[in-house]
Amino acid sequence: MCHACVMETVKQRMLSRRHVLTAAPAIAAATVAGGAFAPRAYAQEGRRIVDMTYVIDADFPTWSGPPGIETEQLAKFEESGFNAFKMTVFEHTGSHVDAPLHFSADGLSVDEIAPENLVCPLCVIDIRAKADADVEAQVTPEDLQAWIDAHGDIPDGALVAMNSGWQQYVATEKFAGLDENGVRHYPGFHVEAAQMLIEQTGAVAIATDSLSLDIGSTQSFDTHYAWLPTGRYGVENIANLDQVPASGAMVFVGAPTHRGGSGGPARILAMV
Amino acid sequence: MCHACVMETVKQRMLSRRHVLTAAPAIAAATVAGGAFAPRAYAQEGRRIVDMTYVIDADFPTWSGPPGIETEQLAKFEESGFNAFKMTVFEHTGSHVDAPLHFSADGLSVDEIAPENLVCPLCVIDIRAKADADVEAQVTPEDLQAWIDAHGDIPDGALVAMNSGWQQYVATEKFAGLDENGVRHYPGFHVEAAQMLIEQTGAVAIATDSLSLDIGSTQSFDTHYAWLPTGRYGVENIANLDQVPASGAMVFVGAPTHRGGSGGPARILAMV
Repeated sequence: MCHACVMETVKQRMLSRRHVLTAAPAIAAATVAGGAFAPRAYAQEGRRIVDMTYVIDADFPTWSGPPGIETEQLAKFEESGFNAFKMTVFEHTGSHVDAPLHFSADGLSVDEIAPENLVCPLCVIDIRAKADADVEAQVTPEDLQAWIDAHGDIPDGALVAMNSGWQQYVATEKFAGLDENGVRHYPGFHVEAAQMLIEQTGAVAIATDSLSLDIGSTQSFDTHYAWLPTGRYGVENIANLDQVPASGAMVFVGAPTHRGGSGGPARILAMV
Repeated sequence: MCHACVMETVKQRMLSRRHVLTAAPAIAAATVAGGAFAPRAYAQEGRRIVDMTYVIDADFPTWSGPPGIETEQLAKFEESGFNAFKMTVFEHTGSHVDAPLHFSADGLSVDEIAPENLVCPLCVIDIRAKADADVEAQVTPEDLQAWIDAHGDIPDGALVAMNSGWQQYVATEKFAGLDENGVRHYPGFHVEAAQMLIEQTGAVAIATDSLSLDIGSTQSFDTHYAWLPTGRYGVENIANLDQVPASGAMVFVGAPTHRGGSGGPARILAMV
């Protein structure tokens, strides 16, 4: 893309539209019957909606360190009659999807994940007690078995999420967990739990409330390499796991659709 | 964001990880039980999932003309053991949300739209016959009334979508509809239909299968200015409206969450 072209085009549009757009807010004011619209606490089919997505800005912690997003305002309402921005985003920022292609040579890109696999029964594995005692606590096969013993089989098409309570640290340095030697420390999925899900269930996705599927100090990324090349996907930095039940919710993973992408920020909503 | 910093950091990571990552694909191969995972035709609660989102690349038509997205590969699997990209995106590209802030000074930004308003009963207004005869056919109050007569009241929280059949032109110049004078021609919502929805219903969103909420040749953007400043949102370039019923489907609008944005590409999935 020619950024200069985009910006120049937008500028020209702003100039050419300015004379008509300056009058338009009056039209808007006249058509608002009874004042501003207040979004209502409407829930589809009587069910509650839980937003499992962080707001992304340059302050949101990233795995690699530098800000994951930059925005630039291309048009301002006061000058042009409308607001518009462009954004530059590192794919693996905020609440985001890891597509199979992220850790494979030719796996599914983010736009190729089957839509049916983006609407999932949500299974939440609670390892908060372990993570309180160990910053690199992991979801293990035993944790999965405990969930199964309590709630029944993991459903086909499930998204299996780790709740380590890591969200409480999102505004602190503990979230990225870098020590004095530059090594990260945060919870993740043990590769044996990923293998158990692959071999014994129809789960299509795993999710973590930390920066990565693997624990912070990994050098070998075993869980990424075990899980993603099989065609399944991951979600990192999922939010608000304490607002959904361990079993019974449905989660919608709004993965982005840029062609050939290895993942990207996703809007994730649960229906409880 | 310092792009050079991001890229340098990624490069350093690639170098530091290379010696461990070169061995990792063998781990992955060993853990794929029975070969690659085939996503299954799983549908949550027995319902069918319809993807209402276009794949975005530099060839996707935009309102302003230049490509709306550029991607750059930061890491390649063959060299680094993983794939990663950054993307630069004009917000109003592909299947995307127009937030209230797009056409107001201080309306809700895209990250501020209530999550409850992103899971909506879907009402499809079929104006394909009109659009076959008139490239600037509009959804009118009469069209809305005909839908109500056939299907009952428009539900609270609804997303009301125009099906003009415009998707058939997405790979052609007719989609953007520029004439020899640089004027656009495609269907949209008449401002009086927007006003009827505001005054008489609890609809939270309107959507079009064309590039804009307003018809192509507008100079005053009446529908944008009537609808968005009330706190309601819009969706442009919605896809696959011919695969959902006129009434009865539920639609998830996976709006992006970059702070302060005026809109942006969204993953939109319907459950039928």
